[in-house]
Amino acid sequence: MSSSLIFTNYVAETIDEIVERLQPSSIHVLVDVNTEAFVLPLLRSQSKAVAAASVIAIKAGEMFKNLDTVSAIWKKLSDGEANRRSLLINLGGGVVTDMGAFAAASFKRGIAFINVPTTLLCAVDASVGGKTGFNFNGLKNEIGFFRDADVAIISTIFFNTLTSQEQLSGYAEMLKHGFVESEELTRKMLAYDVTNYRPESLLELLKESVAVKERYVEADREDRGARRALNFGHTIGHAFESLAMKRKSPLNHGYAVAFGMVVALVQSRIKYDFSSELLNAYVDYVKRHYGAFEISCADYPELLKFMHHDKKNDRKDAINCTLLRAPGQVEVNVPQTDADITAALDIYRDLLGLP
Amino acid sequence: MSSSLIFTNYVAETIDEIVERLQPSSIHVLVDVNTEAFVLPLLRSQSKAVAAASVIAIKAGEMFKNLDTVSAIWKKLSDGEANRRSLLINLGGGVVTDMGAFAAASFKRGIAFINVPTTLLCAVDASVGGKTGFNFNGLKNEIGFFRDADVAIISTIFFNTLTSQEQLSGYAEMLKHGFVESEELTRKMLAYDVTNYRPESLLELLKESVAVKERYVEADREDRGARRALNFGHTIGHAFESLAMKRKSPLNHGYAVAFGMVVALVQSRIKYDFSSELLNAYVDYVKRHYGAFEISCADYPELLKFMHHDKKNDRKDAINCTLLRAPGQVEVNVPQTDADITAALDIYRDLLGLP
Repeated sequence: MSSSLIFTNYVAETIDEIVERLQPSSIHVLVDVNTEAFVLPLLRSQSKAVAAASVIAIKAGEMFKNLDTVSAIWKKLSDGEANRRSLLINLGGGVVTDMGAFAAASFKRGIAFINVPTTLLCAVDASVGGKTGFNFNGLKNEIGFFRDADVAIISTIFFNTLTSQEQLSGYAEMLKHGFVESEELTRKMLAYDVTNYRPESLLELLKESVAVKERYVEADREDRGARRALNFGHTIGHAFESLAMKRKSPLNHGYAVAFGMVVALVQSRIKYDFSSELLNAYVDYVKRHYGAFEISCADYPELLKFMHHDKKNDRKDAINCTLLRAPGQVEVNVPQTDADITAALDIYRDLLGLP
Repeated sequence: MSSSLIFTNYVAETIDEIVERLQPSSIHVLVDVNTEAFVLPLLRSQSKAVAAASVIAIKAGEMFKNLDTVSAIWKKLSDGEANRRSLLINLGGGVVTDMGAFAAASFKRGIAFINVPTTLLCAVDASVGGKTGFNFNGLKNEIGFFRDADVAIISTIFFNTLTSQEQLSGYAEMLKHGFVESEELTRKMLAYDVTNYRPESLLELLKESVAVKERYVEADREDRGARRALNFGHTIGHAFESLAMKRKSPLNHGYAVAFGMVVALVQSRIKYDFSSELLNAYVDYVKRHYGAFEISCADYPELLKFMHHDKKNDRKDAINCTLLRAPGQVEVNVPQTDADITAALDIYRDLLGLP
């Protein structure tokens, strides 16, 4: 684990220790309206540093993960006379940490920032890997760059404010880490009931899951090769998200990945004879907990268009996918034609009982 | 010299060689309306790669070095189906290369880009150091980060399209490199007539000047210590630029630095007994070639406010300046009070004969 990643349920104390060490000239805390209402008051009462911080509040949700919001953050920092020794604390889910990281890393050519994920999804996914950014031109994370937080503080204390839907959303990424790691971890993940978790056991499982991500990220910081293992389920997942955004009914990222992994496992079954037993076990899990993202063949052209726009595509003709021979046996940059994808989407609809 | 920096007057051939090596999936060339009219046609006729590129044209000048323009560049790339293996060629002065670099380095988390400076100022200043960015909230380069171009191609072939004002603007940064390097280089620079240059001798002097910058940048990539030597003349210079922008009559960056160096040399004389003979020789040079930036004491509060906003200031009370004991003997982070600055501005006005 990198030293910049701290797993602890003593969040306020940890923030104060870090601030003591960094001695920033000013402290700014970025929240959305949800974390402002439900998380900030508690932290303010427990942490001297957070109590002293000036608050930058933004609207909540993927819909506001855009340039206007980033610009508003910059403006607040600039008007608040932040300088190069200022510190930004990003307190929220992935939308807050992705945009906050982008804003901090590009403000006056980069100021220090701490990520404090308040959702399981952000803790498992956005806290490691240094991805920053926002949606642009109707495309997810179209703008962004790589920059690690100075520290990410990972805890489970905020998750009691999450709905079971939000818990499941984060858990989809943990399932993904199971798939790219080993059959053992996959089955362990499929057996755990995240909607009825204990803080300590979940923090342990989270640590194990994040460790998988860290190993891949360390091996490939620029996201050009091995790291694409972590993209498992995401090519289709992002397209589902983009389609949902276009329908004006945004799809939770984790759910999109959960559904995307069904398609990716189907592709893996067709191409590499991935175990049908495990595919079916996963489909059962998805149906039980996540339901289904509804698509018809009328949506295919749009979905394919989104996929061709995907950052991971180096070539214009094929769509690069991450597939599995078996859990832990990952193949990255597998070129798939529109026909390959279409076939898998048909089976996805069958498996999830869509018309 | 870093291998990513190429000094040559065979620009078209060099671009084609680089493109041959990089094999980008698409090529995009960023120009402003000036380089589109006066530089692009020639390069298009000589370079296969540039001829094949899709053109992104923006308005010219510091006034348009803003978020709207960056956003327009991103939109063109996105609509033009640029992907992570695309290449952006930034063809222009510092405004084009700073924004083009920012846009490329943050598009889909970073695509390759080449800077081709068409002005002396950009060649000597913006081509090395990895600074990217744009103006925001009325402040110069408020947003940006560090990222090197994959290659910067430095030539003097485009400078015949420059006015003598533009030549002098670039030359101010070369003079600065003289001051922070040695008395010998300073006197060599003060003896050279840039408004009547020969391409080969200027390319040689440019090489010598850029080498000074590269040495400082290599020693301090994050711009926190030694590199601030290069900030000589810039703290006041940037404030002059900001004031001029506010007056709606933008001041050329090089001129701002030329005037800023007068103030910095005065501060250096007061604090470190910098040679009055060399100060006067420089003031003569400035009066002869650059004239004067007009300020009165009514402007001081505004100028001080801009300086307190400067990225280089870690502390809220003092203004950090780069001063000289003698040419080549640089002191960075010298705290100066408002009174110190005010005294130097008074003497600046006296020296340049301002009322």
